[in-house]
Amino acid sequence: MKIAVIYGGTRKSGNTEWLTKQVINGVKVKEFHLSNYQIDAIKDHRHSEGGFPLVDDDYQQLIQEIMTYETLIFATPIYWYSMSGMMKNFIDRWSQTLRDPEMKHFKKCMENKQAYVIAVGGDQPTIKGLPMIQQFQYIFDFMGMKFLGYILGEGNKPRDIEKDTKAISAAKEMNKVISQGNEA
Amino acid sequence: MKIAVIYGGTRKSGNTEWLTKQVINGVKVKEFHLSNYQIDAIKDHRHSEGGFPLVDDDYQQLIQEIMTYETLIFATPIYWYSMSGMMKNFIDRWSQTLRDPEMKHFKKCMENKQAYVIAVGGDQPTIKGLPMIQQFQYIFDFMGMKFLGYILGEGNKPRDIEKDTKAISAAKEMNKVISQGNEA
Amino acid sequence: MKIAVIYGGTRKSGNTEWLTKQVINGVKVKEFHLSNYQIDAIKDHRHSEGGFPLVDDDYQQLIQEIMTYETLIFATPIYWYSMSGMMKNFIDRWSQTLRDPEMKHFKKCMENKQAYVIAVGGDQPTIKGLPMIQQFQYIFDFMGMKFLGYILGEGNKPRDIEKDTKAISAAKEMNKVISQGNEA
Amino acid sequence: MKIAVIYGGTRKSGNTEWLTKQVINGVKVKEFHLSNYQIDAIKDHRHSEGGFPLVDDDYQQLIQEIMTYETLIFATPIYWYSMSGMMKNFIDRWSQTLRDPEMKHFKKCMENKQAYVIAVGGDQPTIKGLPMIQQFQYIFDFMGMKFLGYILGEGNKPRDIEKDTKAISAAKEMNKVISQGNEA
Repeated sequence: MKIAVIYGGTRKSGNTEWLTKQVINGVKVKEFHLSNYQIDAIKDHRHSEGGFPLVDDDYQQLIQEIMTYETLIFATPIYWYSMSGMMKNFIDRWSQTLRDPEMKHFKKCMENKQAYVIAVGGDQPTIKGLPMIQQFQYIFDFMGMKFLGYILGEGNKPRDIEKDTKAISAAKEMNKVISQGNEA
Repeated sequence: MKIAVIYGGTRKSGNTEWLTKQVINGVKVKEFHLSNYQIDAIKDHRHSEGGFPLVDDDYQQLIQEIMTYETLIFATPIYWYSMSGMMKNFIDRWSQTLRDPEMKHFKKCMENKQAYVIAVGGDQPTIKGLPMIQQFQYIFDFMGMKFLGYILGEGNKPRDIEKDTKAISAAKEMNKVISQGNEA
Repeated sequence: MKIAVIYGGTRKSGNTEWLTKQVINGVKVKEFHLSNYQIDAIKDHRHSEGGFPLVDDDYQQLIQEIMTYETLIFATPIYWYSMSGMMKNFIDRWSQTLRDPEMKHFKKCMENKQAYVIAVGGDQPTIKGLPMIQQFQYIFDFMGMKFLGYILGEGNKPRDIEKDTKAISAAKEMNKVISQGNEA
Repeated sequence: MKIAVIYGGTRKSGNTEWLTKQVINGVKVKEFHLSNYQIDAIKDHRHSEGGFPLVDDDYQQLIQEIMTYETLIFATPIYWYSMSGMMKNFIDRWSQTLRDPEMKHFKKCMENKQAYVIAVGGDQPTIKGLPMIQQFQYIFDFMGMKFLGYILGEGNKPRDIEKDTKAISAAKEMNKVISQGNEA
């Protein structure tokens, strides 16, 4: 089971990354920081003659690499009660890939994947983060991906998350599941 | 009551724009298409020494202009069960403005505003768009804005929305309310 | 298309009933007021030897009559951000019917039905009533029923609903749809 | 900190009760099984002359006893994506108590309480149970109660819950918090 972590935050070693590290502790994973890539917002050409034009950014290469992993961990800070705009742009672009004649295997490929979500926010994340979880469920349902679990942690200032014993305990539990058969 | 429409879509004359036009028919409004502006994703420097550095894009000028309106209509296509990444980036940047020493009046200014949401999507928007509505409520609550109403329309292909009689009827109703005292 | 209305309220001619009357105006329907029936809370015997014992109340007869209709309109006041306990008890009992050896046609029968929800509440129903709508969607999905639409109206004191022009407009729109081919 | 558990299920030693026992292990609590009480559905007389008539059931005595506790744990099986009808009826009746001239201290008294929710269901509870959690949040917000946490466990057949390691781990974590200063 090859595992990729997709980080949607921009602060190095932020709360979300710290919590995610508890989940992947001792596990072999590949980490992708979206902030290291240029990913443009989608321009909707689903109904244009000629379809989507080529976009000169890093998205295409990134999605192709991510497609080679079987388990995807979406790790995003909660900005304004949802995933970061950066991560949203990444997912929005899937609409383009779904219509890309050279990516006809995309949907099929994603259908075999399983997903986790790890998200940290400062304003009652275990309540106000729930609509975001429902959205991830709709996203994964649409793609046929299996949503295996999520953790909503609380943190605002740097290192706040280290005090969220509930989230840390859930991270350890998730670590056990992910570790099985995935030694680093 | 000065009214601004903030469009989060990229397709010219798309379904969301069409539905919004029913709402603002005969009403004097200023329309902002986010796709006409360069708005970078937020880089979280809330906790950096020195705070947020200047960002060389169009956000600052745009938010200042939008702040002069009293009613904000957020009009976004539903991408992946939420607002577009472009609109998300716009809102994410509010976190920066909230900490901008030269924008100390931002929060106070937004508190006096009222908001509407108009969104059109292709996959059961009146159900699967509800988490997005809840998020807008949380956003407006945080800013102290008054959430006066929303319309979720159905449309996938161009002009689909013209068949959604429920959404059109709701748009006409919203138009009546907005029109009062706002002749174009 | 035979239509049944199932009322979950207890106040005669309450706000929910008033709004529902706008929806069914001129349409031939059969109205069931749950308050006129004795419907006990479910006692969970799904896993008991011998299954569910007979319950001496009005539920069995009621569900059998309701099953003969093709369109079900669930009309409930919003109590504490959800359907009334009376309506919840009625739906909870479906779990019993699903296991009743003499009701083996229940699931199949319900699968062919379509449903509407009309609900009126006093505390921001168009926002705080949304989790209830999501639950109805889950319920209808489970049963294979088609969820055709809902209206969330605002009202607390008697006749408040008559001032909710948005809900009334939506009711008229729903009335048009329901009326087609259903003259009283 | 006096703790009361309010059980909404009817199956003795069911999954919800089992999970709750992990939470209250070693902690002094008083357990109330709603199934042991007769609690009628509310009859809405908020707007009747003379207000609510006396109801000849066990509710009044029960709510008065429960009011003497500082922490309330709502433990309910998830029936049809929400709390049981029995628990809903119990909460619906709070509307009556809020208007009871002899219970004028009710609101004030509840404001000082803190609440937990423990719920077990068979159909993707960590996703499809989320609207119920949002409703509990609205309920507690209305009453001014503090919502300290919740656990959503998975279980359908008896003893299923014993395999939900995530829920059990969360229960142990909650047990630690509750135990502090509450030895049995």
